[in-house]
Amino acid sequence: MSLRIAVVGVGRMGANMARRLVERGFSVSAVFDSRPGVAAELAAELGCLSAGTLADVTAAADIVLTVVTDDRAMERIFSRKGDSLLKGAQGRLFINCATVSPAIHREVLKRARKAGAESLEACMASSITQARSGTLYLMVGGERAVFDRVQPLLRSLSDGGKLLRYIGPAGTAAQVKALVNMVMNINTAGLAEGLGLGAALGLDLKMLMEVFSQTGANSRVLATDGEDMVNREHSCFFSAAHAAKDSGIALDLARKARLKTPLASAALGQFRRMVSAGLGDLDKSGVAELTFKGRGPKPRRRGRRSTGR
Amino acid sequence: MSLRIAVVGVGRMGANMARRLVERGFSVSAVFDSRPGVAAELAAELGCLSAGTLADVTAAADIVLTVVTDDRAMERIFSRKGDSLLKGAQGRLFINCATVSPAIHREVLKRARKAGAESLEACMASSITQARSGTLYLMVGGERAVFDRVQPLLRSLSDGGKLLRYIGPAGTAAQVKALVNMVMNINTAGLAEGLGLGAALGLDLKMLMEVFSQTGANSRVLATDGEDMVNREHSCFFSAAHAAKDSGIALDLARKARLKTPLASAALGQFRRMVSAGLGDLDKSGVAELTFKGRGPKPRRRGRRSTGR
Repeated sequence: MSLRIAVVGVGRMGANMARRLVERGFSVSAVFDSRPGVAAELAAELGCLSAGTLADVTAAADIVLTVVTDDRAMERIFSRKGDSLLKGAQGRLFINCATVSPAIHREVLKRARKAGAESLEACMASSITQARSGTLYLMVGGERAVFDRVQPLLRSLSDGGKLLRYIGPAGTAAQVKALVNMVMNINTAGLAEGLGLGAALGLDLKMLMEVFSQTGANSRVLATDGEDMVNREHSCFFSAAHAAKDSGIALDLARKARLKTPLASAALGQFRRMVSAGLGDLDKSGVAELTFKGRGPKPRRRGRRSTGR
Repeated sequence: MSLRIAVVGVGRMGANMARRLVERGFSVSAVFDSRPGVAAELAAELGCLSAGTLADVTAAADIVLTVVTDDRAMERIFSRKGDSLLKGAQGRLFINCATVSPAIHREVLKRARKAGAESLEACMASSITQARSGTLYLMVGGERAVFDRVQPLLRSLSDGGKLLRYIGPAGTAAQVKALVNMVMNINTAGLAEGLGLGAALGLDLKMLMEVFSQTGANSRVLATDGEDMVNREHSCFFSAAHAAKDSGIALDLARKARLKTPLASAALGQFRRMVSAGLGDLDKSGVAELTFKGRGPKPRRRGRRSTGR
C-alpha cells in the first residue's frame, strides 16, 4: 500500500492505531493532536510529520483517520471556515472513528463531498489494548463502494477483518455504536449495584460473581469489570466521562424517537454523577464507587484530563 | 431412598420438580396447592395423595418441598395458628424453593425448629424446562449439616449436583437469589430499550443483536430474551410479575442497607408498569412491549393468572 495515512487525535486509541498501522507496513505520514506536545512525541516515535495545522494533515495524506473526543471536536476539525481538514481535500478519504452522534457523521460526509472528498465512519467497540494489537471491533457506516476500497486498511485494524462489520449508510454505524454503549453502560451500572448491595449484605463477592456468571445475571461486563469493581481497580480503559457522553448520544436519539428509556436515563445519571464528582477519568467500572458503602466520590480531588478520543 | 417427599405449590415449577423426583425413583407421597383442582390433577398423574390440608401434607411426608408465590404465601403455609405445615412437624425437613425475602426464610427456620423440624432454602435460578429435566441451578442456605443430609435429593434436581451451590446460613441464598434477579431484570429492561430504540431507528435488529453479542453489550438475557423481544414471543417462563416481586425484594434490602440503586429502581418501575397495565403474566421479555414504538399495553385486556411459584 503506497497510500499515505494520517491520524488526527492521538490519544490512547489514536496513537495505538497509528502504531499498529506502521507495524503492518502502512505509510503513516502525519499525526495531529489539539495538544501539540502529544502529537510531536508520537511523530518522533513513528518517524512522521507532526502536522502544525489541519490543512497540513490533509496535504500530507491520502487517507485521514480521525479519533477525536466528541461532536464539538468533529465540528472543529471539519469546520467550513478557518483551519480545517477540508482544506485542499479533493480526492481524500476521511475515516472517522470516534463515538459521536449519527448526525455529525452525516454532516461531515456532506461537507467532505462538497470538498471533493469522501468520508466513512468506523466506530470502535473495543479499547486501548485492541487498538494496539489491531483487534478492534469495527462497525463501518457510509457508502459500500468506499468501504470496499479501504478494506485492506480496516482489516489490519480488526483482526484481519474478522471483527469488521459493514453496517449501512452514513450514521447507521454510529447509531449501532451508541446502542451498544447504552446497553453496556446500563449493564455496568446495574452490576455495580448488585455487587455493592452484595458487599453491604456481607456476602462473599467472589462467590456472588461466580453465581452471576452461571445465571441470568451474566454479562460481558461481569467478565471485564466485575473484579475491578470489587478491587477498586479503576485504571482507565473506557472512562466514565465517555460512558456519559455515549449514553447521552443514545438518549438524544431516544428523545427524537419519542421513546421512554428509564434504564438508559438512570445509567446516564450515574455516569454524569461521576463526572460532576470529579471521577470522570476513572474507568467505567468506577461507577461502583457510587454503589459500595463507604466508598464514594471525594469532592476535593477534581483533576480531569482530556483523553483525545 | 425410602423418604417420603411432598410438594406444596404445584404450579409449573413445583409440578415439574415433582415429576422429576418421581422419575428419579424418589417417593413423592403427597402434593398440595391453594388451587385444589391443580393439586388433584397432578396427584392423579403421579399416583400420590392430593392433600386436603397442610397438616395432612406434613403427616404424609418426611421432607416437604415448598414452591409458593411470595412472602405472604410462606407466612400462610408456615402459620403459627390454624392449618399449617408446622402441625405435627417433629422430625420433618422443609426445603423452600420460592424466591422470597431472606427475612422470611430466617423466620421459617425459627418456627420450624420450635416445632422440632428443620428448614433449608433452595433458591432456583432457572426456569420450567430445567425443573422438568432436573437441571436447576440451586443455591442453598441453612445449616450445612442439614444440607449434607439431603444432598442426594438436591443433586437429582440440579444436574447431578453440578449446579448445586451451598451458599451459607439461612437467608444468604435468598440474598444471592434476589441479587441475581435484580441484575438480570436490569439487563433485561436495558436490552429492551436498546432493541426498541434500534427498531425506532429502522436498524436491522438481527444485525444489532449480533453486534450486541460480540461487544460489551453482550449478556445472558440477550441470548435468552433478545429474539423473543423482537418477535413479541412472550409465553411465560419467568413472568413480569415475578420480576417485579424479586426486584422489590432486592430493593427492600438496598433500602435497609441505605444504598442508592437507581438502575434497580428503574427496572422495578418497568416491571410494575407491566403489572399495572395487565401485562404481569407475560414473560419478562414482554418488557419490550413498553419500549418498542407502536406496541405497549392494551389497557382493556386485564386477565391475570397466579403462577404458583
